[in-house]
Amino acid sequence: MRLAVFDDHRIGVVEDDAVRDVTHVVPAVFDTWPEQRMNWLIRNWQSVGPGLAAAAGAVRPITQVALRAANPAPPQVFAIPANYHAHLGEIGTRSISKGGRTAREVGFFLKAAGSVSGPADGIELPAGSVRRFDHECELAVIIGLAGRNIPRGNALSHVFGYSALVDLTMRIEPGEHEEDRSLRKSFTTFTPLGPWLVTADEIGDVETLESRLSVNGEVRQKARISDMIVGIEEAIELISSVVEIKPGDVIASGTPKGVGPVTPGDEVEIEIDRIGVMRLAVREAAPAPRPF
Amino acid sequence: MRLAVFDDHRIGVVEDDAVRDVTHVVPAVFDTWPEQRMNWLIRNWQSVGPGLAAAAGAVRPITQVALRAANPAPPQVFAIPANYHAHLGEIGTRSISKGGRTAREVGFFLKAAGSVSGPADGIELPAGSVRRFDHECELAVIIGLAGRNIPRGNALSHVFGYSALVDLTMRIEPGEHEEDRSLRKSFTTFTPLGPWLVTADEIGDVETLESRLSVNGEVRQKARISDMIVGIEEAIELISSVVEIKPGDVIASGTPKGVGPVTPGDEVEIEIDRIGVMRLAVREAAPAPRPF
Repeated sequence: MRLAVFDDHRIGVVEDDAVRDVTHVVPAVFDTWPEQRMNWLIRNWQSVGPGLAAAAGAVRPITQVALRAANPAPPQVFAIPANYHAHLGEIGTRSISKGGRTAREVGFFLKAAGSVSGPADGIELPAGSVRRFDHECELAVIIGLAGRNIPRGNALSHVFGYSALVDLTMRIEPGEHEEDRSLRKSFTTFTPLGPWLVTADEIGDVETLESRLSVNGEVRQKARISDMIVGIEEAIELISSVVEIKPGDVIASGTPKGVGPVTPGDEVEIEIDRIGVMRLAVREAAPAPRPF
Repeated sequence: MRLAVFDDHRIGVVEDDAVRDVTHVVPAVFDTWPEQRMNWLIRNWQSVGPGLAAAAGAVRPITQVALRAANPAPPQVFAIPANYHAHLGEIGTRSISKGGRTAREVGFFLKAAGSVSGPADGIELPAGSVRRFDHECELAVIIGLAGRNIPRGNALSHVFGYSALVDLTMRIEPGEHEEDRSLRKSFTTFTPLGPWLVTADEIGDVETLESRLSVNGEVRQKARISDMIVGIEEAIELISSVVEIKPGDVIASGTPKGVGPVTPGDEVEIEIDRIGVMRLAVREAAPAPRPF
């Protein structure tokens, strides 16, 4: 099943080129806290999920809704550093993997939940910044079942579904402040997640997927999930050995080679097989009290 | 008002040595998602808060309940690096402030929400680890009103209340893996937050508070909030210039000098004026699939 979040965080089932509004299955108390609707749905999937295929709801063309993040308020956003064999060492001293080390040495890092956004939100870069901002093309894993110390052989049973994710990063060039990685990856709209969420049963063997990212029509990144160094099961084992994973959590599974800059006016497009295409317009933010 | 979370994430008002159970003011839909009760209460404080002083509820001695985290599921946990004038440079190459730089250069970092715990949960160190684990004594700021790009002159209007927080950290010694700081600070129980939350109106001038942390009765850290380098208002300006802060968010406001190790069997005690005392027993975890 394909689940979308649209407009004011309404919940929809995506079928062909239309979205069927099934928001009514979520308790009305969330009408004043709508960004939690998807977390509630994932937590209650065993009882609510099976009825969604036949649930009534207004049907609208997908082009006439504003698509939000596939899960707008994940409890936690974990991210794996550079994670494909061909990527290591690519960007030298500015490498996100600190000299070519992998998640086995560096572990995971975190992004702020508030950085998660959807196709309709675009990508907003800080006003007038001289810094470099890079795209990273990633498969997102959305957690369904909570767990701690999950052995990798059991990890996929904790996965609810998948989505496409662009991990935006403010780089450090020589002479610039060396802000913590968490900050540099957590600006509002720096974690586009979409265009929707596809449940694990509909994806089948995730290893066979291919991901592609282009900027202004030029392909910059392209990779097979099977070329990951630390696979999804090992990533779940690693993260859950530190802290409990929770329903709705997002794991950004790491980027392949081809990381590169984006600037205002660019259009970024990410596509993953059997998930879909997410297009993002890059713009500059309005001036703020504290510049970056 | 002093608000506690206890037992199965019930909500209580703390008065003298007793807690009055006011869980019934939170919608029943959260009975299956109780760790969100405090976030709901903070979001709905304008309508629900004024009635809490007179709300009926069973009263129990505070010693007979299990105190949980003052907010068990913050949407985001931000943390400011070493932040008192006397602390900088204290721990040399292992410094959490990377050679004495402050939040003005490093910015903030993130902790996983799942690392947040309460007095009854204690502190659990990874099984059989040879790594060093340090305590950091911090004032926690709990956010009430959402906001982005908040100028510091307006920052305190976004604060809901305060609590005491111990920021536990796995250190990097020469020859050890250099895991990302987010990982090293995000183990389950590595963010004790308590013993309860005190609303901002009851704290008054936060600058006049003093914090103390002791291990096995020996005072290790002691500081005045007025000695912070980056104060609470500037921290809120900094964080909100990157990403929206949300109701229930926690800001760990940085540690003074005296950071030191804890080992299984220790008792850690943190006390902040007008907030209270939180005692934490340190233990070793059961063996896990992936050791640290």
